[in-house]
Parts: sequence; C-alpha cells; structure tokens
Amino acid sequence: MKREKGLLIVLSGPSGVGKGTVCGALREHDTHIRYSVSATTRSPREGEQEGVNYFYKSKEEFERMIHEDELLEYAQYVENYYGTPRQYVEEMINKGHDVILEIEVQGALQVKETFPEGVFIFLMPPDLKELRNRIEGRGTETKELIDNRMSVAKDEIDLMDKYDYVVENDEVELAVERIKAIVTAENCKKDRLIHLYKELVKE
Amino acid sequence: MKREKGLLIVLSGPSGVGKGTVCGALREHDTHIRYSVSATTRSPREGEQEGVNYFYKSKEEFERMIHEDELLEYAQYVENYYGTPRQYVEEMINKGHDVILEIEVQGALQVKETFPEGVFIFLMPPDLKELRNRIEGRGTETKELIDNRMSVAKDEIDLMDKYDYVVENDEVELAVERIKAIVTAENCKKDRLIHLYKELVKE
Repeated sequence: MKREKGLLIVLSGPSGVGKGTVCGALREHDTHIRYSVSATTRSPREGEQEGVNYFYKSKEEFERMIHEDELLEYAQYVENYYGTPRQYVEEMINKGHDVILEIEVQGALQVKETFPEGVFIFLMPPDLKELRNRIEGRGTETKELIDNRMSVAKDEIDLMDKYDYVVENDEVELAVERIKAIVTAENCKKDRLIHLYKELVKE
Repeated sequence: MKREKGLLIVLSGPSGVGKGTVCGALREHDTHIRYSVSATTRSPREGEQEGVNYFYKSKEEFERMIHEDELLEYAQYVENYYGTPRQYVEEMINKGHDVILEIEVQGALQVKETFPEGVFIFLMPPDLKELRNRIEGRGTETKELIDNRMSVAKDEIDLMDKYDYVVENDEVELAVERIKAIVTAENCKKDRLIHLYKELVKE
C-alpha cells in the first residue's frame, strides 16, 4: 500500500526526563524514521558536527530565519536560540518519510499549531520523585534551582493534555519500543489509509 | 503505572482475509493478551475442545443466552449460531487485562455499540485480486459463489470506516507485529492515562 505523506512525530517532555537519551537510543534501532536537526546560536561543543548535532547559526542568521518563517518552532535558553528548520521536515514528510523532532514542551506546542496532524508523544518520568533524583544526581544545582525545576515539571505535566501519547521512561529500551509501536500503529490508522483503500475497491 | 481497565481489541475483516490465521499466530507470541472463546451451536470438529475452540451449546441454550443479554454479539451462519459470551470479556477487562475478539464484520459492529471505547482493527487483504486468489485457492466454490463473495468483500471494505485501524495481511507475521504495536500504542494513549498521572502530581 503506497503512502502519501509521512508522519511528523514530536517527542517532548519535562526537562531532565531523558528525551535526548531516548531519541539517541531510537537512532540505534533499524527504523525508517528520519531525524530533524535543530538550528542553534550556541557554539559547537567538542566533537559536535555541523548538520549532525546542530546547524550552527549566528544570532543575525537565526533572527532572519525567525522573521522569514523558516522555523517550525524556536525558543531562547540562556541567551541562545534553538529551533527546528521547517524545510527539511516538510521535504521528508512530503516524500512519505516519518520524521521525529525531539524538542522542549513549549516548542512542541508551537509545532502543534502548524502541524495539528502530527503525533505528539509526551515522555514521562516514572514519577516525580524519580525526576527529583535525576536532577539531584547531576550534582550541579542548588536547592532553589531544583525546587524551581520541580515546579516547572508539574506545570509541564499539566501540559500533557495537549499530547496524543504518554510514554513512561522507566527504562530507555522500553521507552524506545513504545515509541516504535506508536509509529507503527499510527501508520495503520484508518483515517490515514481509508482513501487509499477506497481507490483499490474502485478498480 | 497501574492500569484500571484492560483494552477490548476487536480483530475483524472480510471473509477469507485470514483472521483466524493471524489470531492463531498472535497467540504463539508472548503477549499478555487474553483470547475470548466464542459460543456456537455447531458440532465440534475432530480435535476441537470445549472451552478452547468454542463453547458448544444447544440451540435452546444459545437462544436463552441471546434473550438474557449474555452475548456481546452473535450471528447465524448456515443454520448455526456463533457468538461472544459477555461475562469472560468483562471480567478480564475489569481485572486490567487486554482481551481480543476475532469476529466477523457484522459482529464487530454489534460490539461497537456496546463497547465504543474498544480498539477496532480491520484486517485487510493486500488487494481484492489477492482475496479472489485466496478464495479460488480453496477450490470448493462455484464461480457464482466466488463472485458473490467478492461483492460481499467490497461491501465490507466500505465498513472499514467504522474501524480505528487497518492492518494489511500481506504476511501473517507482519500483520501480527502491527497488531501488537497497536495494542502497545493504545496502552500509551494520553486519554487512557492522564487521570493516573494527574493523581501522581497531586501527591
């Protein structure tokens, strides 16, 4: 059965939940999913490569992209911009490839405005205590900062309602299997397929 | 994360598409899915066992079950009744187990009236030509009967619209993997989980 368009899959969730780790583990699996590369104004860290980890942009270039609507979503963290270039995502989807974005919650909500037909997956810590443990495990935060992050996480959990799926990140490989299952299931959704089958019956 | 209720999964599709084969192959896999056993008035065939293949009922017993609303769905084929006892399905779901029913299209639509929250999967032949090949391959049908089955199949494809998912039965093992993925994904649906997470945040 030929497909017309690919899926836009948005993987998001609270800070510290392990989005990057899960997305990295997913890349190790043999799937046909394409990975969107973000643009940023922050400097490359050691070992990072242009077009692999990020597209590195000057502040002026990034602001031009914002003004010319070349970003599906963007945000500013600690004086740097981060965003998702629209062109790659749209090209892949139009060719019938599924594309995944791994982004922060606020970015995911921006994408939802442009792509309501996307598949929005919320990665959840097994519970808030576990999130606290993870954040404390980093050992670089003050108590105030930790409490603040907990409060942010609670707000973000309230945002879960805007998503289609909730994937618990109890174990990275289990989370990856759930995400793969969601992609497979979404590709079997009747609403995405029925027009193709109706053509088949007409023949 | 504790679950409250299990899923009711309804696997259905046109006559001859291979529902029984796919459901049989799914049982070979290590899943937690429970399988509903149908009731019938037809006689046991060699090797069939009471409570494994079917619950064998007299016509009088079956009609009593109909009148006392003990069946989720039933139908009559070639003078025999076939139906799904309600009790087992409801018990399993209430205990948090996912239950699968493998039934004909008309039965699936009956179940949908009682269990609109069920997960309705339509098993599709790769195309109608393939369905014709399969039916002809049985070697026991007249041309008239085959043409009639084709016409029925076209009508059933129109029924696809009432389902949530369409699974192509191009290869049995691929169809099984898709069904397993759908069950996993449905268990990650935000709408099924959000109240549990909201309680977690309150703590």
